[in-house]
Amino acid sequence: MNAVSYSLAELAERFQLTPHGNGEQRINGVGTLAGAGASQLTFLSNGKYEAQLAETCAGIVVLREENLAACPSAALIANDPYVAYAKIAALFERLPLAPPGIHVSSVVADSAQVSQSASIGPCCVIEDGAVIEDGAVLGPHCIIGNNCVVGAQSRLVARVTLVTRVTLGKRVLVHPGAVIGSDGFGLAFDHEASSHGGWIKLPQLGGVRIGDDCEIGANTTIDRGTLDDTVLEEDVRLDNQIQIAHNVHVGAHTAMAGCAAVAGSAKIGRYCMIGGNAGVLGHLELTDRVTITAKSLVTSSIREPGEYSSGVPLQPNRSWRKNAARFKHLDEYARRLSALEKDKTHE
Amino acid sequence: MNAVSYSLAELAERFQLTPHGNGEQRINGVGTLAGAGASQLTFLSNGKYEAQLAETCAGIVVLREENLAACPSAALIANDPYVAYAKIAALFERLPLAPPGIHVSSVVADSAQVSQSASIGPCCVIEDGAVIEDGAVLGPHCIIGNNCVVGAQSRLVARVTLVTRVTLGKRVLVHPGAVIGSDGFGLAFDHEASSHGGWIKLPQLGGVRIGDDCEIGANTTIDRGTLDDTVLEEDVRLDNQIQIAHNVHVGAHTAMAGCAAVAGSAKIGRYCMIGGNAGVLGHLELTDRVTITAKSLVTSSIREPGEYSSGVPLQPNRSWRKNAARFKHLDEYARRLSALEKDKTHE
Amino acid sequence: MNAVSYSLAELAERFQLTPHGNGEQRINGVGTLAGAGASQLTFLSNGKYEAQLAETCAGIVVLREENLAACPSAALIANDPYVAYAKIAALFERLPLAPPGIHVSSVVADSAQVSQSASIGPCCVIEDGAVIEDGAVLGPHCIIGNNCVVGAQSRLVARVTLVTRVTLGKRVLVHPGAVIGSDGFGLAFDHEASSHGGWIKLPQLGGVRIGDDCEIGANTTIDRGTLDDTVLEEDVRLDNQIQIAHNVHVGAHTAMAGCAAVAGSAKIGRYCMIGGNAGVLGHLELTDRVTITAKSLVTSSIREPGEYSSGVPLQPNRSWRKNAARFKHLDEYARRLSALEKDKTHE
Repeated sequence: MNAVSYSLAELAERFQLTPHGNGEQRINGVGTLAGAGASQLTFLSNGKYEAQLAETCAGIVVLREENLAACPSAALIANDPYVAYAKIAALFERLPLAPPGIHVSSVVADSAQVSQSASIGPCCVIEDGAVIEDGAVLGPHCIIGNNCVVGAQSRLVARVTLVTRVTLGKRVLVHPGAVIGSDGFGLAFDHEASSHGGWIKLPQLGGVRIGDDCEIGANTTIDRGTLDDTVLEEDVRLDNQIQIAHNVHVGAHTAMAGCAAVAGSAKIGRYCMIGGNAGVLGHLELTDRVTITAKSLVTSSIREPGEYSSGVPLQPNRSWRKNAARFKHLDEYARRLSALEKDKTHE
Repeated sequence: MNAVSYSLAELAERFQLTPHGNGEQRINGVGTLAGAGASQLTFLSNGKYEAQLAETCAGIVVLREENLAACPSAALIANDPYVAYAKIAALFERLPLAPPGIHVSSVVADSAQVSQSASIGPCCVIEDGAVIEDGAVLGPHCIIGNNCVVGAQSRLVARVTLVTRVTLGKRVLVHPGAVIGSDGFGLAFDHEASSHGGWIKLPQLGGVRIGDDCEIGANTTIDRGTLDDTVLEEDVRLDNQIQIAHNVHVGAHTAMAGCAAVAGSAKIGRYCMIGGNAGVLGHLELTDRVTITAKSLVTSSIREPGEYSSGVPLQPNRSWRKNAARFKHLDEYARRLSALEKDKTHE
Repeated sequence: MNAVSYSLAELAERFQLTPHGNGEQRINGVGTLAGAGASQLTFLSNGKYEAQLAETCAGIVVLREENLAACPSAALIANDPYVAYAKIAALFERLPLAPPGIHVSSVVADSAQVSQSASIGPCCVIEDGAVIEDGAVLGPHCIIGNNCVVGAQSRLVARVTLVTRVTLGKRVLVHPGAVIGSDGFGLAFDHEASSHGGWIKLPQLGGVRIGDDCEIGANTTIDRGTLDDTVLEEDVRLDNQIQIAHNVHVGAHTAMAGCAAVAGSAKIGRYCMIGGNAGVLGHLELTDRVTITAKSLVTSSIREPGEYSSGVPLQPNRSWRKNAARFKHLDEYARRLSALEKDKTHE
């Protein structure tokens, strides 16, 4: 499938790993420990797959020194086999060609600046004052609104919309359907409007700043700030369908799984991990290295690093119904329990 | 509104139902039991609407034999009136015309293969090696990435993006904003990168395979696999804003309601029903015929068919606050309860 | 940054506020109480920021009369400073120019009616029978499907899709990625299909009606009705990534925060507030002025105005695990507690 191949010796040198076995052993792809063939490389990182090592048919295995004895094939020894594997696997990623230049079907405003080394795919729209830096790649159907900047070597896979006042750093990767820089949800209720009052919209005058090496998932939305900017520091990683509200600040190296949501003006620290469909209420602060498990809701600020959770366990519906009904009386039960204890001490 | 009409006799023959009443009775549309007029057809399936039957003004009612006596109009007798109604109602759906051919505003790579009977709407982009099979319809603004296949008679309503290595089966229906084949969210934390470490991206080398007769909702996202493919078997039905992560496998005839999410490498069985905004954690397995109620989180594999739930009931905020605060002490209460019981038995 | 400026006297007259200080004092922008400079206007509405008032460097502060004494600068006195500020700040919003006319790259069906005062941006597609009324603005990449209507002065920021039979009122604002009028998720399970049965799709023959002054967030989805229409009354405000299923009816002035979801045929009252990622099950009714807090799930109809919640509080994972495990036995605990009490009364 892939004509390009690498020898054990080449990989060892390129990624500074210790080779074991025949340096001429070549691989032309990667696979799982169970599925890789003789011309593929795989890895062992998680202890629970150790039993599969003896049976692997892979040509090369990336592993820790302690697993070398059990390895039936050539090997590359790494401190962190998963990281080493990720770097090697990247050799086999075939990105679509992105020749420099602007596709004839795209519409570029006169005042926009597009680097000659940038690649602009079909049906893109680049508006007034936008800047596309060197080596940036815009796949089909991207919209770069007024005064937005796409940093050098960034890649917008397809159908990405930057609304206005959005700045992407270098090497930012944005997946299809993402919307960055849309209006924050800011409303004031005007009791004097019409008969019983109505909503007045607060203009969203800020922008969005996305740091270097961030990744933004498919159909994720990031609103621009009300007055100041919504900010993602460098190397923030957002999965699909995440919602980042206006004025949010996300610290460097924080990762969020699919469908997580952060409400307005919340401040998330560095190296945090936000689980899938977890939520953070507005105006809260999370310190660095906080992990929130899936579907949990953060309702007050977190000052201590660590792992936090909410929710109740899944059960068969019949027993869940009984327990859930009791939840409505939990306060009463606690009082009754205390009363019994008090009675007892008074006996 | 609709010029086409059908007689009772025609419908009975076409859908193999037993007619009752004047075979010449004609209808030109469908409506609810309460709202349908004399030229419309309706149905009675759910017992709780039985009382409405006597009052209906509909020209024809699809119903079970046991309800025939109470029906004031012509009728069609069906074993499953809801299914029969669904088939009849489809006669009145007016899909946009989709003439064969490629709209002049679309951009098609030389190496793409587009069937002469396929219809490609305005502003589509079809990239290298893509295949559009017979009778497939692409509405406006669809992007078909490298090496993607759109199966025969499939319909992409509008603005659908297939990123790369995505294969749709026959008669697949995809709604606007869906993104299929985007990068899975695969990251390795490299402690040796920069000063305090950073994320390394794992290339996502697999694809997505969608079976025949699947339906994918608006703004739903389905990531491609890391090494193998993300798979939906035939007749899987996904509502809007669903997130399917990389390497997930969904069994045939499974349906998921809006905003459900399935994390990486989870395996969902056949004939499952996943409720709205429910979640399934990564690497779990759900056997066939499992139902998960809305907003529940599945945190371990499920081996037995049946209905499962998590969550606590909604309450007025004031009482909810009291009960929720007690939840933090539930373990302590259980211990205190046991202690009281132990004391009692020792008395 | 912004050349346009306004004097205290001008603002007082325009917005019918009471000025205090030098009527010639001019501002050319807005900012926060803490961040605004001498040429900017700010506001004090929330009591917890009162302490910042004395230190503000803003040129003008909008505030209540009771705070005037502590204000170091010129002031505008308002009954509701937040509402007054919102109106003033709107003076500084710079929307992209939207000249009347149809961009040459757009595709407009012969039978569509586009007002001469409407602005149609690049790469739009306007299908048969669609109507674009006076002063409406379509940003790039909008798709207006068959028989859809975009009301006067409405603005579709970019990449908005109206599928079919969607009517937007006047001054409706829709953000990028929104999909309105997609198929509702209506399925009947046909036990007689193929070997073990399969899904039959119910055609979605209704439409969507959106009232005047509504706002629809980025990547929000609103399905069209099965027979009747899905309806949003006037001044409904939806944040990003909200899911509104078929046949839902939302009352006027109701607001929903990001990632909320409403299942099919639910009826939400007027002046309701639905929190972020909250959910409402199908066929329920919520009366007027109901507030649902974030991530809560509504599982039965609500007849009384007020605030409602579900969920359990976030905790450190270790203690959460202990408490959550006990939840599975809550019914048992309640019975044991009652038994102890009964024993006691029999002593």
